[in-house]
Amino acid sequence: MEKIGFVGLGQMGRWMALNILKAGFELCVYDIVPEPVQFLVEQGARSAASLPELAAWADGVFLSLPNTAIVEKVLFGEGGLVHGARPGLVVVDLGTTSYIPTLDFARRLAERGISFADAPVSGMEARAKEGTLTVMIGGEEAIVERVRPVLNAIGNQIVPMGPVGSGQLTKLVNQLLFNVSCAAIAEVLPMAAKLGLDPEKVLQVVTTGTGRSFAAEFFGPRILENKFDEGYPLKDAYKDMVSAAEICAHKQIPLPLVHAATTTYQMALAEGYGNENKGAMIKVFERLLGVQFRKRKS
Amino acid sequence: MEKIGFVGLGQMGRWMALNILKAGFELCVYDIVPEPVQFLVEQGARSAASLPELAAWADGVFLSLPNTAIVEKVLFGEGGLVHGARPGLVVVDLGTTSYIPTLDFARRLAERGISFADAPVSGMEARAKEGTLTVMIGGEEAIVERVRPVLNAIGNQIVPMGPVGSGQLTKLVNQLLFNVSCAAIAEVLPMAAKLGLDPEKVLQVVTTGTGRSFAAEFFGPRILENKFDEGYPLKDAYKDMVSAAEICAHKQIPLPLVHAATTTYQMALAEGYGNENKGAMIKVFERLLGVQFRKRKS
Repeated sequence: MEKIGFVGLGQMGRWMALNILKAGFELCVYDIVPEPVQFLVEQGARSAASLPELAAWADGVFLSLPNTAIVEKVLFGEGGLVHGARPGLVVVDLGTTSYIPTLDFARRLAERGISFADAPVSGMEARAKEGTLTVMIGGEEAIVERVRPVLNAIGNQIVPMGPVGSGQLTKLVNQLLFNVSCAAIAEVLPMAAKLGLDPEKVLQVVTTGTGRSFAAEFFGPRILENKFDEGYPLKDAYKDMVSAAEICAHKQIPLPLVHAATTTYQMALAEGYGNENKGAMIKVFERLLGVQFRKRKS
Repeated sequence: MEKIGFVGLGQMGRWMALNILKAGFELCVYDIVPEPVQFLVEQGARSAASLPELAAWADGVFLSLPNTAIVEKVLFGEGGLVHGARPGLVVVDLGTTSYIPTLDFARRLAERGISFADAPVSGMEARAKEGTLTVMIGGEEAIVERVRPVLNAIGNQIVPMGPVGSGQLTKLVNQLLFNVSCAAIAEVLPMAAKLGLDPEKVLQVVTTGTGRSFAAEFFGPRILENKFDEGYPLKDAYKDMVSAAEICAHKQIPLPLVHAATTTYQMALAEGYGNENKGAMIKVFERLLGVQFRKRKS
């Protein structure tokens, strides 16, 4: 695999593409936004005028796209990759995409002789720049081995999880536990405030005691200081809950806590907090109880 | 406060009592089990033949008892402390006791001129021995200051939380977040197994990723190795869920995730796992899904 196509040059994608180029692969990029395309071309990449042109040229195409709907459009939509792809092409989805649609994409691509792997990454922009991401990959072993040299350019931990979908599923398991912890904080901290406890002392306990979690460590102090603009927006985190709900429904898997947490997300979205971070869910319960855990804004 | 009565010489109590004695207070102990009484007497403590006798002698009585029902019995039951107590006595509950009954105990003691503070401790037997427990105390400021010299003998972090009940409430907030995380693991890990993921790799992700929690760090490896005998029994942890349910009901506080987690605890108790640790809740969902996340016993 020498000729690499890369679609989606956002905050994460542009650095992953650059690291693939620096590792000595031939790179051709595509994005609807001109600026990052220009940046990669200046570094020595080619650019494609269309997705079919990119697919026809490449041995492997890597996607770094914001959501499941856009992945589907880029693969199968009008002017999508499949309209130029030759049998034997390998497509790797580096984004966080829903599990059930991922299985569907793999099946539809296989019908055209195109191989697929899901390889969501963990780590923020800083680790994307350094090429030190963690990559959880689902796909046939032979495909994983074919794309591994490319993944080595973007990450330092490449973890094969099993068949197609298992990369997304592993990331989903992590996100569900994270999101449940966020929703738990949102209801328990206002209870503490309602019953007269001092928020700062409570946070000291829940970030150091047996109830501690990354969610409490990350969002606790941000909630106290009314910082709802750091981290991913609620509406993006919600896609993991949708993915879990699909799996629950199709596979008859009971997930009572995830279900309760999903309701909390929906209440927060209905209240209009979709563009704030997950800490903003606390405002739903603060309003219901008529208390404020957060510091008053001065 | 010079004359200290101490009731309840279990795994924690005997070491706390010993440290109070070593700090130079006059100590009188009481327990229904003779062995730890004998141990403390050998170290220089007195012992009381009854609770009223102990209460009549002491300036302050400290309780380290296993549950709310026993606290009520020791305070108000036939042959309980109130039958010997003089007005002006201070009672401090060092155990983990339900919040609503704690408020009730304080009110009933106040009617007799007896002061009360709730001071649950955090830390295991090792820290009780060393005298380095964390003590979360709820009570009137003047009472907290009166008992502080005694608490300094058992802990190195004495954290005044507010009025009576706030010590128990702070501990409850911590336990609720801990218990929700335990119930979340119980449902999400079997889902991962059902969908074909490798348990060890999943644990690697959820103990290091953004979904991490003390619950996952502590119970994850123990679940994998079928170790359900380390940590508190499920049936004891359940008392925190009962306490939360009481608060929800009386104060009209919605706690949807705690409620869902309570159902999971109840399923596990109904299945007969009450004497195992909280990790055993996973067996409920493993059975429902017909999978095993844990290693097979060889």
